Amino acid sequence: MNLPALSDIKAAYDRIRPYIHKTPVMTSQQLNKIFGCELFFKCENFQKVGAFKFRGATNAVLSLSEDGKKRGVVTHSSGNHAAALSLAASMNGIKPYIVMPETAPAVKKNAVAGYGAQITFCKPTLQSREETTQQIMEKTGATLIHPYDNFNVICGQGTAVLELLDEKRDLEIIVAPIGGGGLMSGTSTYVKSINDKIKVIGAEPLNANDAWKSFTTGKLTLSVNPSTVADGLLTSLSEMTFSIIRKNVDLILTAREESIIECMLLVWERMKIIIEPSSATVLAIIKENTDFFRSKKTGLIISGGNVDFRKLPF
Amino acid sequence: MNLPALSDIKAAYDRIRPYIHKTPVMTSQQLNKIFGCELFFKCENFQKVGAFKFRGATNAVLSLSEDGKKRGVVTHSSGNHAAALSLAASMNGIKPYIVMPETAPAVKKNAVAGYGAQITFCKPTLQSREETTQQIMEKTGATLIHPYDNFNVICGQGTAVLELLDEKRDLEIIVAPIGGGGLMSGTSTYVKSINDKIKVIGAEPLNANDAWKSFTTGKLTLSVNPSTVADGLLTSLSEMTFSIIRKNVDLILTAREESIIECMLLVWERMKIIIEPSSATVLAIIKENTDFFRSKKTGLIISGGNVDFRKLPF
Repeated sequence: MNLPALSDIKAAYDRIRPYIHKTPVMTSQQLNKIFGCELFFKCENFQKVGAFKFRGATNAVLSLSEDGKKRGVVTHSSGNHAAALSLAASMNGIKPYIVMPETAPAVKKNAVAGYGAQITFCKPTLQSREETTQQIMEKTGATLIHPYDNFNVICGQGTAVLELLDEKRDLEIIVAPIGGGGLMSGTSTYVKSINDKIKVIGAEPLNANDAWKSFTTGKLTLSVNPSTVADGLLTSLSEMTFSIIRKNVDLILTAREESIIECMLLVWERMKIIIEPSSATVLAIIKENTDFFRSKKTGLIISGGNVDFRKLPF
Repeated sequence: MNLPALSDIKAAYDRIRPYIHKTPVMTSQQLNKIFGCELFFKCENFQKVGAFKFRGATNAVLSLSEDGKKRGVVTHSSGNHAAALSLAASMNGIKPYIVMPETAPAVKKNAVAGYGAQITFCKPTLQSREETTQQIMEKTGATLIHPYDNFNVICGQGTAVLELLDEKRDLEIIVAPIGGGGLMSGTSTYVKSINDKIKVIGAEPLNANDAWKSFTTGKLTLSVNPSTVADGLLTSLSEMTFSIIRKNVDLILTAREESIIECMLLVWERMKIIIEPSSATVLAIIKENTDFFRSKKTGLIISGGNVDFRKLPF
C-alpha cells in the first residue's frame, strides 16, 4: 500500500494554499485554567464550508489528470465531505456529482446544491448508494473521491496540523478526532515526520469506539450502528487509515456523550465560537484525562462548525 | 457638560491596553456577496467577559484616585456591564459591589460572582435598585460606575473603533448599536475626530427606537417598556450620550425583530461565531437598507456574544 509521506503533505499544501483559508489558532485563558493545561485550538470551523474536509477535497480535485478534471468527480455523502467536494470542484471548473439518500435533510441538500453539485438521490441503503454511484461513474467517467480512504484526501487533511505547528512550534501533544481516520492519518503522518517526540492522541466517542477497538486489538474492527451526538465520527477506519494510525498514533482515548456535550457548550460559552459535537470530542478526552494533559502544551484540531441550530443537544 | 475628546480616548487606550484583548477584525466573503458590500466585523464578542463593556469598565476603574480604588466601585445591573465592572475591578485589586434584582437568572448571578463581585440583592424595582445602591455607597464609600452615563466609560468604549480604524484605515462607514449610547458616544467621537468623511450610523431595534426618536425630533425621548430580542439595547440615552450622538452621528436606522433574528442566525451559520441579538442589529439595518450600503467598505462593531443557549430566538 502506498502511504502518504511528509513530502506528499508538503506538496498538497503548496497545491491547495491559494484556495483554502489559513485558519486561526485560538486560545482561552479560561479553558486553560479549567483544564490545567495550555490549549491551542486550530479552528477548521472557520475553513471554507465550515470544515477541514475542504483541504482534502481540494487536494484530490487538483491532483486529477487534465482528462480526469474534464470528466468530473463523484462521492456519496450527505455531510461535510459532499459540501467540500462540491465547492472544491466547482471552484476549479470541475463537475461534482453527489449521491445522497432521498431522506437527507433539506438543509443539507440545499447546501450541497448551493455549492454547485449535481445531486442524484438514492434509497437510504448502502447498496443503493453504491449502485447509484457506480452508475454515475459508468455514465460520466467521473472519478470517485472517497471521504477518507484516498491518498490525496489524506494528504490534504494533513495540512491543518502543518499550519498549526508552523505557527506554534513547541507543542508537546496533538489531539485530533477519529471518524474514518482521514484527518488523523494526515495529521499523525505529518507530526511524526516533523518531530517524533510530539505525542499524537486520537479522540473518539465512547459510543463509536471502533478505532479504539481496532488500535487496542491490532485488528481492524468496524462499528455497527453506532449512536453518538458526534455525528461526524460514525464511520469506521479503512485498511489504509488503520495502517497509518497504527504506525503513527500514540494513544486513542474515548469520551462519554455527556462530556462531549458539556465541552461543546463550554467552547460556545467561553470562546464564542461555534464548533460541532465531533470537534468537542477532542476537548472531552482532555476533560476525562486531566492528569495526562496537565501543564502540557496541547494542540487541538477543531474539525468543523456545521451544526443544526434547531437540534442542539443542550 | 465636559464631553470626551479624541485625546481622552487615546489616553484611555494607553491605560487599558495591558488588560484588554485586542479583538480580531473578521470578514466573510459569503456575507459580502449576500449584502453587496464589504463588511469588516470588529469582534468584541471575543473581548474579556464577552462584550465591549470591559473596555469602559476598565478605563473607569483605572481612572479612580488611589483613595477611590481603596473604597471600591458599585453599579446596579444584571447584564454585561456588571460582569465587566466586576472583572475589571477584581483584576486591579478593587472591590466591586453589584446590586442585582433577586429575580435575576442564576446564570447571571453566578457569572458576576465568579468575577469576584460582592452581590447585594434588591427587589426588582427601579426604586429598590437605587436605594440599595445608595446604601452601599454610604456604607463603603464606593464610587458609582454608571454603564454609559459616565465620561471614562464612554472613553473606554471608543477604543474598539480606534483598533478597528488602526487595522483598516479606508472604511467609509462605521455602524454601531445604540442602547444607552455609551458605545456610540465613544465610537462617534473617535471617528469624527479622526476623519469626518467617514459616515457614522447607529443601529437600533424598531421595537426600542427611543434614540431614533430623540435624534429625529431633537428632544431626548425615553423608551417605555420596550420589548425586543436585542436585550442589550433596551436602555434609553442620557443627556450626555444624547449630546454626543446628536453632534457626531450621521444617521440612525432601525431594524425589525425578524431581521435581527435572521442576521444573528446568518452570522452563526456562515461565520461560525456567536454574537448576541444586540450585535445582529448592526447587520440587520444593512439588510433592510442594502442600497445605502452598496459597495461600501463598512465597519461593524459586534458588541458581544453573551447568549442564553437554552432560549434561542430561532
